Amino acid sequence: MPGLRLLSRASGNECELITCKDSHYNQVTMKIALDAVGGDFYPANPVSGAISAVAERQDLHIILLGPKELVENELTKQNYTGNRISVVDAPQIIGMDESPAVAVKSKQNSSIAIGLTMHQKGLCDAFVSAGNTGALLAASVFILGKLPGVSRPAIGSTYPSVHGNKFMLDVGANTDVKPETLVQFGLMGKVFTRYILGIENPKIGLLNVGEEEEKGRELTRKTYELLKDRPDFAGNMEGRDILKGKADVYICDGFTGNLLLKLGETIPEAIGHIVKQTMIKKGLTTEQMQLVGGILKESFMPFDYQLVGGVPFLGVNGNSLVGHGGSPPLAIKNMIFTASKMVEKQVNKHITNELN
Amino acid sequence: MPGLRLLSRASGNECELITCKDSHYNQVTMKIALDAVGGDFYPANPVSGAISAVAERQDLHIILLGPKELVENELTKQNYTGNRISVVDAPQIIGMDESPAVAVKSKQNSSIAIGLTMHQKGLCDAFVSAGNTGALLAASVFILGKLPGVSRPAIGSTYPSVHGNKFMLDVGANTDVKPETLVQFGLMGKVFTRYILGIENPKIGLLNVGEEEEKGRELTRKTYELLKDRPDFAGNMEGRDILKGKADVYICDGFTGNLLLKLGETIPEAIGHIVKQTMIKKGLTTEQMQLVGGILKESFMPFDYQLVGGVPFLGVNGNSLVGHGGSPPLAIKNMIFTASKMVEKQVNKHITNELN
Repeated sequence: MPGLRLLSRASGNECELITCKDSHYNQVTMKIALDAVGGDFYPANPVSGAISAVAERQDLHIILLGPKELVENELTKQNYTGNRISVVDAPQIIGMDESPAVAVKSKQNSSIAIGLTMHQKGLCDAFVSAGNTGALLAASVFILGKLPGVSRPAIGSTYPSVHGNKFMLDVGANTDVKPETLVQFGLMGKVFTRYILGIENPKIGLLNVGEEEEKGRELTRKTYELLKDRPDFAGNMEGRDILKGKADVYICDGFTGNLLLKLGETIPEAIGHIVKQTMIKKGLTTEQMQLVGGILKESFMPFDYQLVGGVPFLGVNGNSLVGHGGSPPLAIKNMIFTASKMVEKQVNKHITNELN
Repeated sequence: MPGLRLLSRASGNECELITCKDSHYNQVTMKIALDAVGGDFYPANPVSGAISAVAERQDLHIILLGPKELVENELTKQNYTGNRISVVDAPQIIGMDESPAVAVKSKQNSSIAIGLTMHQKGLCDAFVSAGNTGALLAASVFILGKLPGVSRPAIGSTYPSVHGNKFMLDVGANTDVKPETLVQFGLMGKVFTRYILGIENPKIGLLNVGEEEEKGRELTRKTYELLKDRPDFAGNMEGRDILKGKADVYICDGFTGNLLLKLGETIPEAIGHIVKQTMIKKGLTTEQMQLVGGILKESFMPFDYQLVGGVPFLGVNGNSLVGHGGSPPLAIKNMIFTASKMVEKQVNKHITNELN
């Protein structure tokens, strides 16, 4: 990408990204590109998340992508004067509701297109965004390509349970899949679960409507057949097994997974609302309400997507993550950290090994 | 069914069911047949549920189906001496794990087969069971047949939300469906929601992975097309809309619905478990724990399937409901009441009108 210009925060001078001599960029090994115009609250939240991330980890350099002036002004507004955040000008913005196919094709100077291309060229180690998921997925597959042997990349997400965070995929990339694809999801999920969630011997569970082998659809029966002799296969899992944490990796098509994920994400808010009504009805004192509220708040922490920050596109030839459109700075920061952990743990190398 | 014998509790004499002169059976209009050997805790829980039901409502007659001696002994054990519960001998028992197709074909003297046949012959107004769901569904469709115009019967279930109970179907009868079938589910669900849940103008929501018309699978896109001009259609609903109660009737295939339903049912237990751990960690006093526990327990009431009791097979030509295998007496009693409400409100007549 000739002419890709990076604005060094140290000197204030522009320079070619790959030859920039005075930038912190050249001195660290972990470089994460961040979409400064992704999500519902840009540039404020991405910029704030980037500042928090570099404040916490000395080994990080963040490259913010977006219209240069907009991003620069936000950095100034947030009083960032360090040299560990750079800006690369990406004048086009892909909106949250834009058609992914059209946006990816027509906006080649968007933060998403430039950021992923930088990643593909080795100018950064990962690309993260709280932007349009469909556009990010499409651009990730198109620009980064797939890992060898992968038939369909999947969006994976942590899923809370009484035994800590588990992992579910696909949660939205593929509404319809084949048995062989589900098996690959299981293997990719195993790698992520082992190296990122720290579960040593992850067990794969096939989401289904019953425990027995013959239950479900042709898809689930054929997938069961492919998995049944594997020692890491925990069998069919029902809806009631998810919050119980009966398996570590839950595999399903992206239609089912998306509904299950989004349902799970609303549990804290819904229960919180109902509990509040109950407390008002029962006439609890302010002190009592604070006690109940405090306990609930802490109990719901495993459900807080901010603490995980983002979900990876597994199976693409690179490290690309997407966060909630509403991501606050904490979520952005944690998405940056998850991305860097994926780089450090060489998740993609392990996926390739696991599949081959 | 020649020779079907009913044991009157008043005289202790057996008599032909339809000519039994001394039985309360002939004096009331609402006759509900109950599987006395369905579920994990038979005959104790069904018998106890039946006794509670007739104690509460004077206009009910319950016919218990199961091996005569077993059921009779349980009634004696539970000290029931009234004349508002009868027993019809059904010597065969269909196990919870039996293959539905095989069981229905081979056990024609089971409580399920005899109970549904009695209903089909007009000897009772509804049949309810906490037994093998697959066998009950298969037998209900086979023995009762379908309502005119119905392509596929569905299992419908209430689903809790912050705005009270809503309704979801299909939750397990059909793992794969067609767009026209989903539309029928919506109409059947509307009738149940209006007449049984008391929601005056129920809105139908199509479960999907996004709000926009073009989102999802071919199935959802075609269903959207069929529904979009109806005033009772509320559009696509995402997983995050369910607990918020954004629609009144959620339609989906039975694979998706089953997973969503069973996930929802475990929310109270999972949250209760996590909250307990938090309280222990925080070192709350016994009194404080009781306060939090009490508020949670009351808040989780909308999630308590016992209060609804059972789920109907909608689209069959009769009133047939199934409850949880673990149904306690309260759930059995409420399933009986839901069945009688379906009879009183003429749900099937309204479904037929709605479809035609």
